[in-house]
Amino acid sequence: MAFGWIDEQAARRRRAGLVRTLRPRAAGTALLDLASNDYLGLARHPEVTEGAARAARTWGGGSTGSRLVTGTTELHAELERELAAFCGFEAALVLSSGYAANLAAVTALAPHGSLIVSDAGNHASLIDGCRLARGTAQVTAHADPDAVRKTLGGHDGPAVAVSDTVFSVDGDAAPLAALAEACREHGAGLVLDDAHGLGVLGDGGRGAPYAAGLAGADDVVVTVTLSKSLGSQGGAVLGPARVIEHLVNTARTFIFDTGLAPAAAGAALAALRLLRREPGRAARAGAVARELHGRLTAAGLEAVRPDAAVVSVRAPSPEQAVRWAADCRAAGLSVGCFRPPSVPDGISRLRLTARADLSGAEIERAVRVIGETRP
Amino acid sequence: MAFGWIDEQAARRRRAGLVRTLRPRAAGTALLDLASNDYLGLARHPEVTEGAARAARTWGGGSTGSRLVTGTTELHAELERELAAFCGFEAALVLSSGYAANLAAVTALAPHGSLIVSDAGNHASLIDGCRLARGTAQVTAHADPDAVRKTLGGHDGPAVAVSDTVFSVDGDAAPLAALAEACREHGAGLVLDDAHGLGVLGDGGRGAPYAAGLAGADDVVVTVTLSKSLGSQGGAVLGPARVIEHLVNTARTFIFDTGLAPAAAGAALAALRLLRREPGRAARAGAVARELHGRLTAAGLEAVRPDAAVVSVRAPSPEQAVRWAADCRAAGLSVGCFRPPSVPDGISRLRLTARADLSGAEIERAVRVIGETRP
Ligand SMILES: Cc1ncc(COP(=O)(O)O)c(C=O)c1O
Ligand SMILES: Cc1ncc(COP(=O)(O)O)c(C=O)c1O
Repeated sequence: MAFGWIDEQAARRRRAGLVRTLRPRAAGTALLDLASNDYLGLARHPEVTEGAARAARTWGGGSTGSRLVTGTTELHAELERELAAFCGFEAALVLSSGYAANLAAVTALAPHGSLIVSDAGNHASLIDGCRLARGTAQVTAHADPDAVRKTLGGHDGPAVAVSDTVFSVDGDAAPLAALAEACREHGAGLVLDDAHGLGVLGDGGRGAPYAAGLAGADDVVVTVTLSKSLGSQGGAVLGPARVIEHLVNTARTFIFDTGLAPAAAGAALAALRLLRREPGRAARAGAVARELHGRLTAAGLEAVRPDAAVVSVRAPSPEQAVRWAADCRAAGLSVGCFRPPSVPDGISRLRLTARADLSGAEIERAVRVIGETRP
Repeated sequence: MAFGWIDEQAARRRRAGLVRTLRPRAAGTALLDLASNDYLGLARHPEVTEGAARAARTWGGGSTGSRLVTGTTELHAELERELAAFCGFEAALVLSSGYAANLAAVTALAPHGSLIVSDAGNHASLIDGCRLARGTAQVTAHADPDAVRKTLGGHDGPAVAVSDTVFSVDGDAAPLAALAEACREHGAGLVLDDAHGLGVLGDGGRGAPYAAGLAGADDVVVTVTLSKSLGSQGGAVLGPARVIEHLVNTARTFIFDTGLAPAAAGAALAALRLLRREPGRAARAGAVARELHGRLTAAGLEAVRPDAAVVSVRAPSPEQAVRWAADCRAAGLSVGCFRPPSVPDGISRLRLTARADLSGAEIERAVRVIGETRP
């Protein structure tokens, strides 16, 4: 029977305790949220939701077409201008998701005959970008600029190195300055995914590339998502105008996709303006993460020192990670639970996210619950 | 220099007259729109924009995480239930775009060792799905069920055939019944992209698979987009519950992507309910397309007979297609212009879309402008 083979896979998943199910949440949940990527607590900020509502009323429920046909409104152009200026780049291109932005950047910048050097800890969307691109991908050890240098050295012709700035699973930062140096030695481009850096790192949340002095460089292209710190949906590619023009003309996930919905563009723009007005939110997210880590470690838990707003706590096994997260939930705390096959190293963990608007009491409560429910 | 090679490509594009630029549109444009995919004229319907605004206020500007972590709200679940019921399928899964839905369906249903038989006229997102999937893709001639049958016959093991129901460039329909028969002879699954069928074809807009008696079949999986007839953004996969569960557990563009923004889910749900209440809109879109085609043909233009709401008109060359579209625009009419490399056969065309809410006078005006500006 067609699709019969999926039943065997389902049975294997059940036996391994790796079944995933969707748990719809209610609007007015009492759970303390340390699971979302809403780092600045802006997703439900009235200015942001009003930005979404106003944009829908002004521009419609959807953008109605590809960005190249009817899907570019003045609102999209405004968001692109302000996002580029904020992060310190010449130009920006908004896409329907961060995933689409990564597919666009990697495929458009790695043509046939080129080399892509990709960090082993990179996000799924960068990996899929490598698979889709016509160039040849080589995976290097995690956060290892020397490996990048060596791999680039063995290739003639166009090359790019591709890396998350803050890795999504453990929240550790990539060695950006050393990576850029390795790339420059070989005339290679650098594509950085700042999904977890924008809004948290750099002066006022301008992102990790900005903090590393790489913003606006003619050999650096950055992708961001509008769905984390900016509390919305969508993604963007930031870079030199000529690179953005190249993407407009060649990136399939840009050309053949409907433009971002006006409401999402409006929400992201409102969040960006709010962040510009209240730059302290960025530093606060990082401070909360460090406080969270300090207290967890003091309580004897094994947590990775956070470079941004993600705090990862090791769990002994997938089953115990799932149980741990469920026990937290039962005690009123929502935490993320990452396990195979979503983790590159096979290690299961609770994934906590710091939010700029968490109070001291909430941090304390979170740490207490996590400690009390530990396996 | 890094990215230096893109300048040569840019120069080639300029010489060939194939440069694409973004043209931001204003909110209150006076242009007559025959370019968007807003087939039912719902994108700016007050119920739809209010659906977006209300959802943003209730749920926030973004969904805040992967659908598997915090990104599934009760609104997403509601949309999935109503969409599945409307189209006649057991279950539905909402993703952030139709593009992401196609990548998810094809990659999850074409594992290592499997065969994917893909129509030569398929949309870019299905093609990228084939490239990303672990299975081996074979492209068959456009709309040729015998070629599909033959290709399936040469393979042992899991197989799927993949096709648009209505092809996006020319608006012609796939031979669904014959395709399903070919697949069933070989125990293969059938994945259909109904992006341009939903809302236009089938009883009250239930889509092309519904019209062909394939809705709810255990060997058929359908993808749709929320960004065309439903006037919003997003995509969905419809199928047997076990297939949807399989996607929840394995589809990377579902697992590693932030859930659809609440405003987009709210807008799509409002549009779906409106369509259920006013089923005549679907038939009207098709009738407008046929009237448009009839009048264009009567005026001596070469147009493809529409099977849904897309009407494609041949242009002599890319340059003349661009000029033609620009002249239409100058005369107050917005039309799509498709040219290489976005067309599989290299033929440039004006792409017109019928909208259910076009008046007779508007159709007449559109045809007059197109005729008067023809190259
Ligand atoms: C590092 C990284 N890049 C890209 C993405 C994709 O962004 P989006 O969810 O906006 O598609 C994510 C998360 O979803 C991510 O963690
Ligand atoms: C046939 C077809 N499939 C899929 C898509 C992608 O859908 P979306 O734009 O919602 O990502 C489109 C158009 O954009 C399309 O025409």
